[in-house]
Amino acid sequence: MTEIEGRQPVLELLRSGHEIKKILVAKGQRQGSIREIIALAAQQGVVVEEVNRRFLDKISQTHNHQGVIAQIADIEYYELDELLEQEYDPQWPPFYVLLDGVQDPHNLGSVLRSGEAARIHGVIIPKRRAVGLTPTVFKSSAGAASYVPVCRVTNIASTIDRLKESGVWVIGADMDGEVCYEQDLTGPAALVIGGEGQGLSRLVKEKCDLLSSIPMQGSINSLNAAVAGALLMFEIVRQRVQSR
Amino acid sequence: MTEIEGRQPVLELLRSGHEIKKILVAKGQRQGSIREIIALAAQQGVVVEEVNRRFLDKISQTHNHQGVIAQIADIEYYELDELLEQEYDPQWPPFYVLLDGVQDPHNLGSVLRSGEAARIHGVIIPKRRAVGLTPTVFKSSAGAASYVPVCRVTNIASTIDRLKESGVWVIGADMDGEVCYEQDLTGPAALVIGGEGQGLSRLVKEKCDLLSSIPMQGSINSLNAAVAGALLMFEIVRQRVQSR
Repeated sequence: MTEIEGRQPVLELLRSGHEIKKILVAKGQRQGSIREIIALAAQQGVVVEEVNRRFLDKISQTHNHQGVIAQIADIEYYELDELLEQEYDPQWPPFYVLLDGVQDPHNLGSVLRSGEAARIHGVIIPKRRAVGLTPTVFKSSAGAASYVPVCRVTNIASTIDRLKESGVWVIGADMDGEVCYEQDLTGPAALVIGGEGQGLSRLVKEKCDLLSSIPMQGSINSLNAAVAGALLMFEIVRQRVQSR
Repeated sequence: MTEIEGRQPVLELLRSGHEIKKILVAKGQRQGSIREIIALAAQQGVVVEEVNRRFLDKISQTHNHQGVIAQIADIEYYELDELLEQEYDPQWPPFYVLLDGVQDPHNLGSVLRSGEAARIHGVIIPKRRAVGLTPTVFKSSAGAASYVPVCRVTNIASTIDRLKESGVWVIGADMDGEVCYEQDLTGPAALVIGGEGQGLSRLVKEKCDLLSSIPMQGSINSLNAAVAGALLMFEIVRQRVQSR
């Protein structure tokens, strides 16, 4: 069982139509979005149980449950094939984000949140040495984790090969790359973002179709991995929107 | 006294030439960037004191000190006049970010970090109901808080008037604005970012020269305030770089 904590995440979970076992609400909580959660749950026939706030404090993993925790079946990750076999709007070609070693759950949550707004078709993460879909990820994603398919793969390098075979351009986010504004990023794309600190591994870098950089203007010039990801995702959005 | 915690923040503090009273290092720590910190401190004649890790744990506010805490005099905020009277590279006109009610220290830190990479000339925050320069902000900024001037003002609305008088265009980040890619954002600019959740206040919105939006493509369409700020800062960077 997985627990989704906080008002926005639980609200988006309900809106997304995801199956929910039970929603726990702190006793006496009836204001604002909690009211909306209770109404939506009633519409969908989801059980809402009043519990002591202390109980929520005890089971909370994010330590920021805001008086509400939803219990769902363990989250099912997508298979790569499912991800690649989605139907695509011809106006909006395939658009994936691949995270190579991102370990901070806030960064995964942030990528899901920005990715939802950029209309990506899925996020691919490695099974090993990477963060998975935890309650903290749901919380940081402001609920977007209920909408964006997440796929776990054993091997990032062979996944890149599969993506290339399916006609997707693999774009590595890398300081050594050409400036993103000068590149044509309008086609089917998989954006590869490296982990905090170390960036892309050499092997992954070599496998990319092109490397793309954000032109840094300062003296430290370090961007957070999730922010760099958002900048490149929205550069792709800009080019797609402007080329229509 | 203010304490700056963590390896990257302390390293950037040293590199920026900021005056440091003392650096506390956990006993036995000598690897990686701690070695670099000790060497730089020696060069600059900054006292390094070995202490028990437990002592660092006790005084740490971020709970993530990574074995090093620097003690500095209380951080001095810039005056608005100082900010506006900086000398500007004619190739890079004035570029400020104004935060209207951002309360999350991680978001302020993130704006400073992205802003440093986007070469902004300063961040303006309100004195009341907003976060100031805390150890958590320094940590989240990955040290960029040592480089980007921060100015605190009593009144955001009258600050906008001052900015306009000095020839700066005030650009409000707002969903109702025109799409940023279609606007000319190459001149002297102050980007106004609203707080988490509520966005810009009505008064501030009315005072802006223009409102600018990021074209959202998804169904939840909520961006974190710091990510939205980074996207608009780098849209300004893109236009400046491409119009040269």
